[in-house]
Amino acid sequence: MVLQLYLDWLSEPCRAVAILLLENNIEHQVHELSVIKGETHSDAYKQINPVGKVPALVDDGFNLSESHTIMRYLCVSRNFPDHYYPNDIKQRARVDSWLDWHHTNLRQGAIRLIKANIYGPIKNLSQVTIDESRKEGDNILKSSLSFMEETLSKNNYIAGGDQFSIADIALACEVAMLPVFGGSSEGYPNVQAWLKRLSTEIKTWDQANAKLNQYLASKKK
Amino acid sequence: MVLQLYLDWLSEPCRAVAILLLENNIEHQVHELSVIKGETHSDAYKQINPVGKVPALVDDGFNLSESHTIMRYLCVSRNFPDHYYPNDIKQRARVDSWLDWHHTNLRQGAIRLIKANIYGPIKNLSQVTIDESRKEGDNILKSSLSFMEETLSKNNYIAGGDQFSIADIALACEVAMLPVFGGSSEGYPNVQAWLKRLSTEIKTWDQANAKLNQYLASKKK
Repeated sequence: MVLQLYLDWLSEPCRAVAILLLENNIEHQVHELSVIKGETHSDAYKQINPVGKVPALVDDGFNLSESHTIMRYLCVSRNFPDHYYPNDIKQRARVDSWLDWHHTNLRQGAIRLIKANIYGPIKNLSQVTIDESRKEGDNILKSSLSFMEETLSKNNYIAGGDQFSIADIALACEVAMLPVFGGSSEGYPNVQAWLKRLSTEIKTWDQANAKLNQYLASKKK
Repeated sequence: MVLQLYLDWLSEPCRAVAILLLENNIEHQVHELSVIKGETHSDAYKQINPVGKVPALVDDGFNLSESHTIMRYLCVSRNFPDHYYPNDIKQRARVDSWLDWHHTNLRQGAIRLIKANIYGPIKNLSQVTIDESRKEGDNILKSSLSFMEETLSKNNYIAGGDQFSIADIALACEVAMLPVFGGSSEGYPNVQAWLKRLSTEIKTWDQANAKLNQYLASKKK
């Protein structure tokens, strides 16, 4: 049975996994769910991923969640080109370190802004809650983007090396999404140059971002 | 040169790394820093880890941060017994999945409570900020511990298997620490039984927790 991928195209961790599959021409079947509509919390979906989050992958009866884990698993089980998740122990550790850093830095900044600016109005959160969350999100993003900027002033790719890795994919999907919920990479020229470079080097970037771009275009109308 | 480990014994990710080294009798030199005193933000320490967080590891000129990454790196580079970080692709993915889950679930709950109950009074945060953070922390911990409880009602170890992995070490250090900042695993009997079992099976558990226990004893006086 082909790989089964459960995702929401508007979720940046989902797009990261999809890009990895698309770039490597791996046959898979996509099951779309809407996070914002709560579809990931249905009883049916919790049979796939009890955590109730996307993305999730089913590989011939083996269910897996967490976008970084899924990316690591695909690289190793499908023997993707080395630059995605290097076999060299130290270079792999550099990629792992950025993936772990992502969770508690850049991603947390994004999550705070999503709470403030997307869920705030939908869920009628109090103004105090929204303000607190936005302030925290802005602070986390500032320190995260500054750290990326410094790193990318010395390296073309976030974990070093001469080609992009799964850490670049994960972080680029996050940075590209920031404007959707009120963040920005403006003022970080090396981050912006890196994102632009990746959006060209990743051949399926536009394909993976098609639904997001449709959504953004509909918002502008 | 022996491994150089930078840590704060009161930090749960630091203790997780230390336990892994101690359990495997790996010679290392410990450099203690105090997170709460801001010692991880000194210029000198940022030469070791520019992120300004502990733990950090230096392996003969190779600097590494992020506790989960350090644990993965040690397991692979020192060829630790397979149960810590299994070679089997699927079993390794299960361990990775729990490590990734830790970052955005259990750990986030702990971080919100640390903000409310430890940094709140020290940094004179507003009551609203403290209340918001505590509420969010309690909610995240409730869902995280419930998910662990369900998993541990079926498995002896969090990622399955018949011996503990680095995911068990990371999560156990977090759960054991919860009472320090106002959390608790009460009401989750399988989580508590798992923690008790691990604290016996991990031979150096008491050694790694010595400074924490001293600190707790001093607080009771």
